[in-house]
Amino acid sequence: MGDDNRRWRLRRRPEGPLTPDVFELVTESIDEPAVGEVVVRVLALSLDPANRVWISGPSYRPPVAIDAVMDGFAVGKVVRSRAEGIPEGTLVTGDLGWQDYATRPADEVRKLPHDNKRPVSNYLGVLGVTGLTAYFGLLGVGKAKPKETVLVSGAAGATGSVAVQIAKMWSCRVVGIAGTEAKCQWLTDLGVDATINYREQDVRKALEETCPEGVDLYFDNVGGSILEAALFAMRQGGRVVCCGAISSYDDNKPPASPRGIPGLFIAKRLTMRGFVVTDFERRFSDGIAALAGWIESGHVQVREDRVEGLENAPTGLMGLLAGENIGKRYVHVADQD
Amino acid sequence: MGDDNRRWRLRRRPEGPLTPDVFELVTESIDEPAVGEVVVRVLALSLDPANRVWISGPSYRPPVAIDAVMDGFAVGKVVRSRAEGIPEGTLVTGDLGWQDYATRPADEVRKLPHDNKRPVSNYLGVLGVTGLTAYFGLLGVGKAKPKETVLVSGAAGATGSVAVQIAKMWSCRVVGIAGTEAKCQWLTDLGVDATINYREQDVRKALEETCPEGVDLYFDNVGGSILEAALFAMRQGGRVVCCGAISSYDDNKPPASPRGIPGLFIAKRLTMRGFVVTDFERRFSDGIAALAGWIESGHVQVREDRVEGLENAPTGLMGLLAGENIGKRYVHVADQD
Repeated sequence: MGDDNRRWRLRRRPEGPLTPDVFELVTESIDEPAVGEVVVRVLALSLDPANRVWISGPSYRPPVAIDAVMDGFAVGKVVRSRAEGIPEGTLVTGDLGWQDYATRPADEVRKLPHDNKRPVSNYLGVLGVTGLTAYFGLLGVGKAKPKETVLVSGAAGATGSVAVQIAKMWSCRVVGIAGTEAKCQWLTDLGVDATINYREQDVRKALEETCPEGVDLYFDNVGGSILEAALFAMRQGGRVVCCGAISSYDDNKPPASPRGIPGLFIAKRLTMRGFVVTDFERRFSDGIAALAGWIESGHVQVREDRVEGLENAPTGLMGLLAGENIGKRYVHVADQD
Repeated sequence: MGDDNRRWRLRRRPEGPLTPDVFELVTESIDEPAVGEVVVRVLALSLDPANRVWISGPSYRPPVAIDAVMDGFAVGKVVRSRAEGIPEGTLVTGDLGWQDYATRPADEVRKLPHDNKRPVSNYLGVLGVTGLTAYFGLLGVGKAKPKETVLVSGAAGATGSVAVQIAKMWSCRVVGIAGTEAKCQWLTDLGVDATINYREQDVRKALEETCPEGVDLYFDNVGGSILEAALFAMRQGGRVVCCGAISSYDDNKPPASPRGIPGLFIAKRLTMRGFVVTDFERRFSDGIAALAGWIESGHVQVREDRVEGLENAPTGLMGLLAGENIGKRYVHVADQD
């Protein structure tokens, strides 16, 4: 196989906000598959806030090593197989990395559902990690109940936008926080009951106005000052689900922690719980089936934000961290056929 | 009834650390009981870190009003009764306040158990609010399990010292944090597996040494930098019970919040939950029965720290906030007979 494998290698850890020069685009050969391995043509590459965490240092997983190919969740097609049960042509997902071709042991990739009818990019978003994060975070960790007031930050992002739609379907009152008028408008179009533009409004005040009886469940994608404002807005017995902290990812300085801890937790009997979607891995197929059904029934609308070409992965990630995207951002690497 | 009722009235809110002059000792008449009320001779007055919170401003309860008699949990004896079912001579507990005689509606006091055999002061501590806080916090909120590593701060205090003893009885490995060598020695005598003197040791390092596999359950009585150190020492899936935050009570400045929130919650799938003991009010008699049984069986040892005389209540509270006491601090106001 020829020397036509473009790859982004991580050359150093970013100091402060991400710059494209921490990565280098190289052209190398495709790794020969060993017995039990497959070569996968990457079709669509997910861009996720967590990507930024992986290159900073240790987190919930080991960091990407210096000079290694950048990790990234992706969907692709098997173009060569030395593994039983995964013939050429199979569509798969997995951590295929920022490259044209990934050579992987068969057990490190997962076949798409047999009846996949949706664009492959959906399996990175609403039917992939971010949709599952919304599903298990809201229902499994947060245990949303009908009529509760549910607050979601990063609400126009890949995870948040699915979370607000599931919460609406669950008969909750839903308030979404986002950073532009266009995002807030889209959330309103999705049926969200009230929106807060955190770049334009005082979030503490806006929460008093939009949630006068307090927040029962806060689904936090951002951390920082918005988490703090939410803690002050929680109702007695409220729950906080810690899903992400994008406000602090693109920096190496530890962020200021929210004030009121533990005082507010005692006075208001709050519960806060963190999770990572892989905690629910054994139930992924249930989650995907539910989400696919809700897309089919029109309860969940899909919005994607496509970045063109592997060469634009670093700038695409920078834009994601700056809040450019509405819905799920991914990189289109190659067409399916 | 004569003008022999000494009372501490709150004259202003403290600015910064508590000083005795925020209170004034006055001598007034005993309030005449209305129908349905009783007059209670205060025998023993509880001193609790929460007292300091009540005089600062709104918290989980309304603040003590300026010029009102200072609130305080106490045990006393009914000396005059205009209520059915509570004859003179009955021993009761309730928020009787910092005074010699409290006139209260009968439904605002609670009779001691009929078979009370313990000194009345026990019903302020191990068989009262602090013992119940330890019991419900550790078992009801924290759900301690055998073999878990349980970390308790304020471990030689009224609540902490009961929590560590219950945890030991529950077959947990128990590490206690306290502020003097004498306190640590007492904890060791109680069977605690390891102690940390936070005034002498680097708590982060000491936790690495004493809890090399991490903390499963942290019972937090102090907040602040010790809570932060504990968060960094938590094990995957660990639980934090927020019971109190004495480190920040004696000041009006909002304390620095622990760093690592929400990052550590996500990476380590932590759960944090706050509570107030009254959340479990309907189960108090079960808790008192269990604690009384464990005292009887020798599993729970009782240590009290007696301050002599109502006139010393303010300085007794100041000393409590400074960590002077070992075990339950209370004010002896009058003898039972």
